[in-house]
Amino acid sequence: MTDKLHEECGVFGIWKKNGQDASLDIYNGLLSLQHRGQEAAGIAVCNTYGERGNICIHKDMGLVTEVFDEAMLNDLQGNIGVGHVRYSTTGDSTIRNAQPIAFQYLKGTLALVHNGNIVNASDIKSELLKDGSVFHATSDSEVIATLIAKIRAHTGSIEEAVREIIPKLQGGYALIIMSPRKIIAVRDPWGIKPLCLGKVEDGYVVASESCALTSVEAEFIRDIRPGEIVTLSKNGMASDTSMCTEKTSHAHCIFEYIYFARLDSSMDGVGIYDARFRGGMALAQAHPADADIVTGVPESGLTAAEGFAHASGLPFVRAFHKNSYIGRTFIKPTDKERHSAVHMKLGVIPGSVSGKRVVLIDDSIVRGTTISNLITMLRKAGATEVHVRISSPPFLHPCYYGTDVPDNSQLIANKYSIEEIRSRIGADSLAYMRLEDLSTMVEGAPICKACFDGTYPTGGTK
Amino acid sequence: MTDKLHEECGVFGIWKKNGQDASLDIYNGLLSLQHRGQEAAGIAVCNTYGERGNICIHKDMGLVTEVFDEAMLNDLQGNIGVGHVRYSTTGDSTIRNAQPIAFQYLKGTLALVHNGNIVNASDIKSELLKDGSVFHATSDSEVIATLIAKIRAHTGSIEEAVREIIPKLQGGYALIIMSPRKIIAVRDPWGIKPLCLGKVEDGYVVASESCALTSVEAEFIRDIRPGEIVTLSKNGMASDTSMCTEKTSHAHCIFEYIYFARLDSSMDGVGIYDARFRGGMALAQAHPADADIVTGVPESGLTAAEGFAHASGLPFVRAFHKNSYIGRTFIKPTDKERHSAVHMKLGVIPGSVSGKRVVLIDDSIVRGTTISNLITMLRKAGATEVHVRISSPPFLHPCYYGTDVPDNSQLIANKYSIEEIRSRIGADSLAYMRLEDLSTMVEGAPICKACFDGTYPTGGTK
Amino acid sequence: MTDKLHEECGVFGIWKKNGQDASLDIYNGLLSLQHRGQEAAGIAVCNTYGERGNICIHKDMGLVTEVFDEAMLNDLQGNIGVGHVRYSTTGDSTIRNAQPIAFQYLKGTLALVHNGNIVNASDIKSELLKDGSVFHATSDSEVIATLIAKIRAHTGSIEEAVREIIPKLQGGYALIIMSPRKIIAVRDPWGIKPLCLGKVEDGYVVASESCALTSVEAEFIRDIRPGEIVTLSKNGMASDTSMCTEKTSHAHCIFEYIYFARLDSSMDGVGIYDARFRGGMALAQAHPADADIVTGVPESGLTAAEGFAHASGLPFVRAFHKNSYIGRTFIKPTDKERHSAVHMKLGVIPGSVSGKRVVLIDDSIVRGTTISNLITMLRKAGATEVHVRISSPPFLHPCYYGTDVPDNSQLIANKYSIEEIRSRIGADSLAYMRLEDLSTMVEGAPICKACFDGTYPTGGTK
Amino acid sequence: MTDKLHEECGVFGIWKKNGQDASLDIYNGLLSLQHRGQEAAGIAVCNTYGERGNICIHKDMGLVTEVFDEAMLNDLQGNIGVGHVRYSTTGDSTIRNAQPIAFQYLKGTLALVHNGNIVNASDIKSELLKDGSVFHATSDSEVIATLIAKIRAHTGSIEEAVREIIPKLQGGYALIIMSPRKIIAVRDPWGIKPLCLGKVEDGYVVASESCALTSVEAEFIRDIRPGEIVTLSKNGMASDTSMCTEKTSHAHCIFEYIYFARLDSSMDGVGIYDARFRGGMALAQAHPADADIVTGVPESGLTAAEGFAHASGLPFVRAFHKNSYIGRTFIKPTDKERHSAVHMKLGVIPGSVSGKRVVLIDDSIVRGTTISNLITMLRKAGATEVHVRISSPPFLHPCYYGTDVPDNSQLIANKYSIEEIRSRIGADSLAYMRLEDLSTMVEGAPICKACFDGTYPTGGTK
Repeated sequence: MTDKLHEECGVFGIWKKNGQDASLDIYNGLLSLQHRGQEAAGIAVCNTYGERGNICIHKDMGLVTEVFDEAMLNDLQGNIGVGHVRYSTTGDSTIRNAQPIAFQYLKGTLALVHNGNIVNASDIKSELLKDGSVFHATSDSEVIATLIAKIRAHTGSIEEAVREIIPKLQGGYALIIMSPRKIIAVRDPWGIKPLCLGKVEDGYVVASESCALTSVEAEFIRDIRPGEIVTLSKNGMASDTSMCTEKTSHAHCIFEYIYFARLDSSMDGVGIYDARFRGGMALAQAHPADADIVTGVPESGLTAAEGFAHASGLPFVRAFHKNSYIGRTFIKPTDKERHSAVHMKLGVIPGSVSGKRVVLIDDSIVRGTTISNLITMLRKAGATEVHVRISSPPFLHPCYYGTDVPDNSQLIANKYSIEEIRSRIGADSLAYMRLEDLSTMVEGAPICKACFDGTYPTGGTK
Repeated sequence: MTDKLHEECGVFGIWKKNGQDASLDIYNGLLSLQHRGQEAAGIAVCNTYGERGNICIHKDMGLVTEVFDEAMLNDLQGNIGVGHVRYSTTGDSTIRNAQPIAFQYLKGTLALVHNGNIVNASDIKSELLKDGSVFHATSDSEVIATLIAKIRAHTGSIEEAVREIIPKLQGGYALIIMSPRKIIAVRDPWGIKPLCLGKVEDGYVVASESCALTSVEAEFIRDIRPGEIVTLSKNGMASDTSMCTEKTSHAHCIFEYIYFARLDSSMDGVGIYDARFRGGMALAQAHPADADIVTGVPESGLTAAEGFAHASGLPFVRAFHKNSYIGRTFIKPTDKERHSAVHMKLGVIPGSVSGKRVVLIDDSIVRGTTISNLITMLRKAGATEVHVRISSPPFLHPCYYGTDVPDNSQLIANKYSIEEIRSRIGADSLAYMRLEDLSTMVEGAPICKACFDGTYPTGGTK
Repeated sequence: MTDKLHEECGVFGIWKKNGQDASLDIYNGLLSLQHRGQEAAGIAVCNTYGERGNICIHKDMGLVTEVFDEAMLNDLQGNIGVGHVRYSTTGDSTIRNAQPIAFQYLKGTLALVHNGNIVNASDIKSELLKDGSVFHATSDSEVIATLIAKIRAHTGSIEEAVREIIPKLQGGYALIIMSPRKIIAVRDPWGIKPLCLGKVEDGYVVASESCALTSVEAEFIRDIRPGEIVTLSKNGMASDTSMCTEKTSHAHCIFEYIYFARLDSSMDGVGIYDARFRGGMALAQAHPADADIVTGVPESGLTAAEGFAHASGLPFVRAFHKNSYIGRTFIKPTDKERHSAVHMKLGVIPGSVSGKRVVLIDDSIVRGTTISNLITMLRKAGATEVHVRISSPPFLHPCYYGTDVPDNSQLIANKYSIEEIRSRIGADSLAYMRLEDLSTMVEGAPICKACFDGTYPTGGTK
Repeated sequence: MTDKLHEECGVFGIWKKNGQDASLDIYNGLLSLQHRGQEAAGIAVCNTYGERGNICIHKDMGLVTEVFDEAMLNDLQGNIGVGHVRYSTTGDSTIRNAQPIAFQYLKGTLALVHNGNIVNASDIKSELLKDGSVFHATSDSEVIATLIAKIRAHTGSIEEAVREIIPKLQGGYALIIMSPRKIIAVRDPWGIKPLCLGKVEDGYVVASESCALTSVEAEFIRDIRPGEIVTLSKNGMASDTSMCTEKTSHAHCIFEYIYFARLDSSMDGVGIYDARFRGGMALAQAHPADADIVTGVPESGLTAAEGFAHASGLPFVRAFHKNSYIGRTFIKPTDKERHSAVHMKLGVIPGSVSGKRVVLIDDSIVRGTTISNLITMLRKAGATEVHVRISSPPFLHPCYYGTDVPDNSQLIANKYSIEEIRSRIGADSLAYMRLEDLSTMVEGAPICKACFDGTYPTGGTK
């Protein structure tokens, strides 16, 4: 039903000196990262006290609250651990690709979680296959795991092996590896995927977003640097910056700011709520509308709508009530009643829009189905005009770094002009954010905006 | 975790000339009424085509989406039906008390759903027991059912029996009865509980709230009048107003406007969103605050916060992100970590409040636990002052009409002065809406505000 | 898949002076009675210690092991209780008709379980409806409950009320009633349905079959007499025989001996294993076969086959292995492969039958589908001749006392002559037990054999 | 509760020219092999029609009927496939070790199922780890898979790779490999584990036992020879016997005949029912008893009891009724009531044993707990003497070929003399089958009886 792009994953790792309840922290962390992936969840923990730690793992298809109950968490005893929430495209939606993945290799056991996509994964895999490796799943994670094992066989430490793989991996990734004694976190040299570091009373936490640090009452320390390797162990936190890159080559994913990340997170120094609010302001300045009220599509368009209202001086009003009881198991109306699915999820507040000229803000248009239904609903409730403003540029190019995008043929901006789109969705006017305003949104931070302009930071692979 | 009052039920009924899919409409209607009760759900349908309709029923503990799947709905074939969502206090949380209830009596079969509470139910039950009646559950609904059956044995029609019971029932109720041919809806003579009427292409709908009419694309006709009996049958809609009361004795539940009803509903002529917005405006005028921003507790305080911002000229800012993936099955932290439960559900957006004097709006305070945690979270995120404004008067008296309220000993307003409450929750200032502003909120409509002033519309029973 | 008649229920009751774990005993008792009904199970318990006992109840569709788990049993705290397993025909297969049923009436609360069928239930129900009673289910049990409540309103004790209903109820029944202080068991005056009494260390047990007494390590005392009312309370066991009938009017259900009851039970003085063995012997004497081996259909025909072998001097050999992992959820082959369903459940042991003339024994033929498949399988495995012997007479008449029988049109013996049946099932010879040998089977005990001869013990109702 | 040894697995494979329903055949085959493993089940299928077949797989913990439903089978579209049922010791009871395992390697994709144990698996695994391999589970199957992949990288065909691994694997195994085009079945050179071949209308079947052939209406062709590699493909059936061994080195697992295999199976030319019957006869001749009746422990001792009765001339009588509704989820009595668990599962038929001297036959004694309870039950039911006869020699040595045996300390025959065992279990006399009679049981076939005599066919590894 949702006409949105999808993130592929969220990762979380923790190293605590004491206690056996790392799994509960990871559970809370994953709950806070649930918006990054709703198809599978998993936790692996280990106890560093004993002679040689045993890695315990549980993962399954479903939401965090579906995969884990109290008894399950109690079974996962350990003071360190990693966790993962996964979104996956249909073809790969199988328990085999769920994470963490754990594996035995020459020097012992490792568990691994990762968010992102390795552009040259199939080349690496081919090399490994020629060497006699076997693969049980289809994920990049298994390729990374096998590569680490291979390199680790002839290096002095797991950190060294991780350092060696960085130049081999092209793409965006946030990777957390757990050995029976350590947690090792690494972020791609472009900084495409987010990863941040926090401090709890007796240890450290790494997570995809800062909101996950807050959920375990960790203090935010800083974002992990592009190319940095952070090791958490009984010796505290150690940082290896030898693979770090210059800021000029950084390219943070702009869609984290536009839609993926949680409103209360902050990434690479930029607050998500603030970024979206600024985006709305820029949109108002570039594409003002002669209207009575400003409203947003819940939840994706609300913050930009507030920014638009602030910059334009028009009142911000909520025009839709979102029914929070309608989840994935909702019996959808049949095709001929497709509009009803939106109907059930979002109810128009008639008093807000009746007799009004409405500015309707959303963060993006992928297929255009939802916005079209919402415009119809607004008009039926008495809106006299509907001016649509989108707080991102038209989405034109595929993403190779782990964001699930539909076929080009399904991307409305790829098939039609803006005027044609306006006409198809039934708006009185339609405008998208200008490419140059993306920079305003993130206050000049270096961004990957390949999906809008086709320029890929990892170079000419595609 | 939520420090809120609870509604006890939502009801829905439909009569359609054609088709066999009344159950799908009821399912959609109940989804829209889910906020009125999350512990049990049920649907009963009947087919008026055949010789003598068979009532089919399914009900169970759980949310609408948990109780019903597509196969189940397909099994419930019929062109007329009733549905129910139930909230219940712990003692009664059993499938035996779930609704609809269906029963066989001298003249055939009936099904019944009801929202509300009959104050004199135990007196009526005693009379029926002396007559040899047996009861299988503990709900008021079964008492009403048995009373109707008793009276119907000597009256000419089911409508007559319903008319006869109205003077016997003291309390607030919205009642929908299904015979194998008709749907009969009745609202208590005080109009305490809401009930409204809508039109679909080939029939009629009745529901607790207008948002449920919208969900099945019904056109809103009007609210059912206090004491009115509406009959839906192959003869269309018939209204019996012989038991209707004067407007001077009407008393609509004020808590529907403050908190229970959905933002996109309208009740007895007053839009819920507008009422809450006006409430926030009145609050700003009565109790202004010297502050930088206005924010609300999601979702309960947001609309009043917008109204407060509008009236005060202060900017409205969102300070909390609500995690929509945390539902009932979330593993709650243990008591010593109670604040964490709120932590997990609501994340502070630091950029919104850091260095700011904040006005925090909520609709009510019951025990005071949640608001206290939120204030702590705001301060931790850098808020310099927190001024709490509550968009309803202090809650002091029990409700006998079907709203579940905690023991007096748990009501913070019953134990402490406003200054003591302010100090306990850690606010810089605290103010409640004035009793006289409730009328402003509903634009002068007659209301039951017994929970605030102790004056009960049904008289001196308590 | 099974071509068998079905019993409708098993009942169990217990009164213990001490402890709170009656529910565990009832659970074990019901497990032992599971063969009498597999569609629903339920337990109600009460604590006689307190001021006024509260009846706790749990029941659901499914096997005993599916309906109850350890947590559930622990929640059912009490020292007395009743339990029920139910088989029901499709139309009534609903949780509403599951037992125990509990109800509130003028003098307090009762729970009730029953096995059997009241022939004049609809007449009694009509009387009660005229009096204003309502019914929530379609079972005889609710009629009995309402009748007891009605009578109890003007009698001095629940036992008196039970005594008054006995002359009103026509049919076969075993009834156990629990008041908050007592267990009252009553058996129909014809003794059609079985019910027996046992002694545990600190109390008493009543159950449909003696195997259920053994399962809770109770000592078998005796069968309850036709028409007897047994009361278990803090005063021990009391027997009211005022409604007992003469032995000449007794009529125990012959199908308990032929098929329903468990092999290790004993009923009205006759061991089930012995009866079936004697049945097989009588069959051998009346209808000998010129064959090499004797075998039986597992499990229904095995004991009679052993008796036949003993009397005939032919060796008893097992020809089929029964796959105990194939239960109700087994994915059945489609219709064109119907023989495969039997194939999956029963595997032929080729060495036993290859080149042999086989006598194949079963207890009865209802539709004839299974036996026909088994004969084909035996021939395929090399049997040269198959002589079928049935250890009961042809089934010709319906049962009105609680045994579920298919329509006349589905009863093979009603449509075809014995020779035609032989030909249809593909046997070399076919013979049924003679009517007069039924008496031999039960050593002259008085029996109801209406399904074979059409003579109904309760008189000319049908 | 059961005092039995456990088999570790059952395997099934099918190649059919037409259709897409191989999964249904495999489902039926696995149902017939369910007695070989009840902890996990899995099916992998492939479609040989298309360009390059995709292997689809589903496996989970639980019984076949729990793991698969109709929708699941329909999703598994293919004309060839393999299936597996698994028994596993507690430590390994995880979904990670469930089979089939599927993996990608240099030349494509393979799926694999196996029954048995590789004695030198850890040596092989060490070699592979040194080479950089990683392992995701702890099963022998993954070691075999990785070894095949390694060898296959430099061989011309998968069959060649299989031929190369045979000399490397020490132990008992039945292995079925599926490539996207072929099914390859191989049996260990000692023939320790069973594997047989059958013919369906348009293809071939391989399975652990012949009863699984019957279940899919396949015609039994023959047992696969020790060391033989059978390939099923569009070219029909091909046999590679180059690794086959002489009959003198064959050693079929004797426990298949004693207990593991199904009564209606035949293995290496010997029918299971016949073998057990002969075993009982031999037992009667070696260790006669002065008694009145012979009975067996259901189901394990029944056939030997029939053989004993036949040879001794004593009547065979059933003394126990087995409750087939008590499965794995049954709430077991607490330790102090341990005898009750047997009580619930097996009920004594009093008429059979009262006043009798009983010979009680079982196939083996592992811990001695069950037999002791049964003897007590028989005496309580009136048996005057109980003479126990065991249709196998005392179990003294561990099995390294995939049979799960308890610690030596739990094996009663390892701790006590026969007279001490007799006294502990409370029998009047006790005798085990003589070692030399094992050969009689299997009519001279070469057997592995290491668990009785400590002589291991694969040599001096242990």
